[in-house]
Amino acid sequence: MQAAILGAGVIGCGWAARFLLHGWDVIVYDADPAAPGRMSQTLDQARFSLTQLYDAELPSEGQLNHAASVTEAVANADWIQESIPELLSIKRDLYLAIQDALPAGTPLASSTSGFKPTDLASDLSCADQMLVCHPFNPVYLLPVVEVVAGQRTHQQTVNKAIEILTDIGMKPVTVRREIDAHIADRLLEALWREALWLVADDVATTQEIDEVMRNGFGLRWAQMGLFETYRIAGGDAGMQHFLAQFGPALAWPWSKLTDVPELTAELVDKIAAQSDAQSGHLSIAELERQRDKNLVAIIRALKDTNSGAGEHVNAVEAMLHNGRADRS
Amino acid sequence: MQAAILGAGVIGCGWAARFLLHGWDVIVYDADPAAPGRMSQTLDQARFSLTQLYDAELPSEGQLNHAASVTEAVANADWIQESIPELLSIKRDLYLAIQDALPAGTPLASSTSGFKPTDLASDLSCADQMLVCHPFNPVYLLPVVEVVAGQRTHQQTVNKAIEILTDIGMKPVTVRREIDAHIADRLLEALWREALWLVADDVATTQEIDEVMRNGFGLRWAQMGLFETYRIAGGDAGMQHFLAQFGPALAWPWSKLTDVPELTAELVDKIAAQSDAQSGHLSIAELERQRDKNLVAIIRALKDTNSGAGEHVNAVEAMLHNGRADRS
Repeated sequence: MQAAILGAGVIGCGWAARFLLHGWDVIVYDADPAAPGRMSQTLDQARFSLTQLYDAELPSEGQLNHAASVTEAVANADWIQESIPELLSIKRDLYLAIQDALPAGTPLASSTSGFKPTDLASDLSCADQMLVCHPFNPVYLLPVVEVVAGQRTHQQTVNKAIEILTDIGMKPVTVRREIDAHIADRLLEALWREALWLVADDVATTQEIDEVMRNGFGLRWAQMGLFETYRIAGGDAGMQHFLAQFGPALAWPWSKLTDVPELTAELVDKIAAQSDAQSGHLSIAELERQRDKNLVAIIRALKDTNSGAGEHVNAVEAMLHNGRADRS
Repeated sequence: MQAAILGAGVIGCGWAARFLLHGWDVIVYDADPAAPGRMSQTLDQARFSLTQLYDAELPSEGQLNHAASVTEAVANADWIQESIPELLSIKRDLYLAIQDALPAGTPLASSTSGFKPTDLASDLSCADQMLVCHPFNPVYLLPVVEVVAGQRTHQQTVNKAIEILTDIGMKPVTVRREIDAHIADRLLEALWREALWLVADDVATTQEIDEVMRNGFGLRWAQMGLFETYRIAGGDAGMQHFLAQFGPALAWPWSKLTDVPELTAELVDKIAAQSDAQSGHLSIAELERQRDKNLVAIIRALKDTNSGAGEHVNAVEAMLHNGRADRS
């Protein structure tokens, strides 16, 4: 099986690494001369981290190739993943360039965090093969992927996508309705916007906000998410009680959210300076290694309690064991 | 040292357990006849979980008493923690009832998640001793506590609060400016509001939203928080680059946040039914045990990588070791 990875930035390289380590061949297309270097760096990192996640052996690593053209990349692909910059026009141009070279039945998935698949596919003859599969950085470690079908996406394409994504150890969550930014980035944007206000108004620094999250509610969300956490807060009276108790606060004029903070040069400088003070003693590569070490440690801890991402990884492990048994 | 716990709901019981297990005597006041039962249940849970968090030995457990009146509870207290319902008038009535019985120099801390300390203390003669110390459920496990001073709070009160909260294994984060809902609940409210829209609009169910969080960005926030995670996303170009790339999206008309979802009976029923389908096979007590098991597992995992809450717990352990050495 071969995956074509179009665009080898942080997300594209992460996809490539995940496919390779789950036994797929990968062909990468990115015109940037720095792309192969980035690719091999991500792959090294993924080899180091992902292997620690499973107690089962991964399949033999696939073959990595770089394509000279985008049509060459997609010609024999069983999966195509587009991860180029978030501009509708350049994404559409890319799809137009490949639609005639697209193998029949091969899903064409976009990593877009914002656009609706129907908008991406509006002028395409291959709209039936097109869908959104939005992953999270680092793609080789975080299991979740949002799967969004457009108006013309075939159900067969969605089914195949879920099968393939599951095969490479992911946890597909099918989004029930197309909306801009899907599920996660709607939530992220809401919180991010409020965080910017807190910094802009000098209520807290970037570091203080991070401390509150990682010593507090971030730990709750990592293992149960939002609703299950609040279900507990409602006690035995349950969600009805929780909503009755905390619902009204929504209508109080607490939040700045009715307003968009203006990213003035001054605010950008302030945030960047606070972030430098907080984490500037570490390089991005060092921060990435720290993050990956933490993610592996957390997910392995959740394997022992069979919860959240740990429950998922246990299921992948069982699949890997069965796969090995089938092949032997 | 003795802590007076006023109000023995989920939060008050959590505070009491944390103080007791760090060697403080605790006197609880709550008129509800169910309070002592709730208290001993929480204490059992905390004994089981908190001891697993540290490789160092905790001090001998303090003495737990229940007071017949609120003035009896505060009479000899070195710390007073108010955790009664979130209504300004009943909180103020309580403070008025105790202000003449308040020992000099004893901080009077409110667990309020919403009110500003200046508003809480507006009519009080003891405003200099009053501040907000807002913890997170489960209080006996999660380290972070938001410390907020009002206009008339003495700096001495704040210093003493930080010292005592550190002594009971917490991670105080001083909020730089009084605002309604402090830091965390501003962030939580923003995300919660958007999540309600997603459910109301049938984009996702409660379970699907939780899956996206616990298999995705929740794992990032648990160990690094928001800004450090995004710093990585910006790559070597840093936060300036990240803000330039993702900042403009804030102004796009993605989010429903400019609007408050109406919690109609229909929406409440929908959320409650989805939550039942997701987690109704487990009792709240079972969910709580699962949550605590997960939290201990995650924080212990982060001890090994010396990150986030794990780094904090390592520091507490060192303190506990030193404390023991001092006493011996």
